[in-house]
Amino acid sequence: MQLFYFKEVDTSTQLLELDKEQSRHMTKVLRKKVGDQVHITDGKGNLYDGKISLVTSNKCHIDIAFAKAYPKPFPRLHIAIAPTKMNDRMEWFLEKATEMGIQKITPLLCDHSERKKINVARFEKILISALQQSYQFHLPVLEELTSSQDFIKRKIEGKKCVAHCEETEKIQLANFIETKADFTVIIGPEGDFSNREIELAIKNGFQPTSLGEKRLRTETAGVYTAAIFNSKIES
Amino acid sequence: MQLFYFKEVDTSTQLLELDKEQSRHMTKVLRKKVGDQVHITDGKGNLYDGKISLVTSNKCHIDIAFAKAYPKPFPRLHIAIAPTKMNDRMEWFLEKATEMGIQKITPLLCDHSERKKINVARFEKILISALQQSYQFHLPVLEELTSSQDFIKRKIEGKKCVAHCEETEKIQLANFIETKADFTVIIGPEGDFSNREIELAIKNGFQPTSLGEKRLRTETAGVYTAAIFNSKIES
Repeated sequence: MQLFYFKEVDTSTQLLELDKEQSRHMTKVLRKKVGDQVHITDGKGNLYDGKISLVTSNKCHIDIAFAKAYPKPFPRLHIAIAPTKMNDRMEWFLEKATEMGIQKITPLLCDHSERKKINVARFEKILISALQQSYQFHLPVLEELTSSQDFIKRKIEGKKCVAHCEETEKIQLANFIETKADFTVIIGPEGDFSNREIELAIKNGFQPTSLGEKRLRTETAGVYTAAIFNSKIES
Repeated sequence: MQLFYFKEVDTSTQLLELDKEQSRHMTKVLRKKVGDQVHITDGKGNLYDGKISLVTSNKCHIDIAFAKAYPKPFPRLHIAIAPTKMNDRMEWFLEKATEMGIQKITPLLCDHSERKKINVARFEKILISALQQSYQFHLPVLEELTSSQDFIKRKIEGKKCVAHCEETEKIQLANFIETKADFTVIIGPEGDFSNREIELAIKNGFQPTSLGEKRLRTETAGVYTAAIFNSKIES
């Protein structure tokens, strides 16, 4: 059954009244009719059974019944990553990382960033679409664009590492992930982190980490990290 | 230094004469001039030093000197995957799998395939572009579209597995990869493999394998596999 994300639903909701645009999408694009059943999530781990109870030219009502609460994922993956120069590459990362179950994404503004502005609303839409498509119930948290310095100095629980391309002593990513600890990774832009950023990260407890011998693009490094983390905690 | 793939180069080549289109790209788009140095690979593991020796309105010559032979990768990853309905998704897979060092790709025609034709020349261009960008020297082999039945019955060396979504006894992908054996994975289309295909695969020695609990799209399953394989053999 098709899954829909509605952030306005909670465990006390009995009736969901879609706004005009949502109604049009549900009834005109997806051709849902009165009596049709759908699955709904609030993105906070809850699944609801929904039944379309009213359809007019610009309204759609859904009767809601709470069905199941999925526990908060643990350990959690948090990737802070410099948005790529080409938007579609970053968007691909957002979609794939969501499919693989990431919990938090922070777009990073770095010393070598070519992209200095992002469209958070558009990014959010991609996360929602990927959540629905991959049938998950915890929408990843998407933060505002944050400077690398501010992020590096933040208090972070669990293990944290910096993935950079400079040739230094590094641990293989797979060997640094623990199955009982949250995991935060920072990934730089096309031109990599600056030496200043790398030094600051190491000074603040970020472990230099290798994503393998291949030269991966920024968005590939992000997806690679999500895949390895997912495999490691599920094995 | 920028890396270029030219299939016509081999270890005996001393002068490479680019054709009209290649010359235009090298001199007009990339603005290379006489004396500029480039790296060249034949996609067979060899790296060459190149030096532009002639530029005219429609010609470009490059002096070639063999520099280094990179050993054949082992173990090798071979993914046979149903091309996605949307071409750009398959193309993302091709790019990312190449970045992560895959050795062979077979587009699969499956019982539930919606896409029944592919443009091999276009796919090949994407592999070359990803090879150059990620600075690798072994171009993945791209096979013609092959029916799932023919592929499954083929003699395959090393370990082989089928990634499907049916709920059966499965091994986690990471636990099935061996660091000393070639690895072949078959991945189905959006509608998954048919029961007939799954049974045939198992009968022919393909191990049913899980790519984790998440519901991954076809192209994500492919990239996920390439990431896990790469991490496993490099750890």
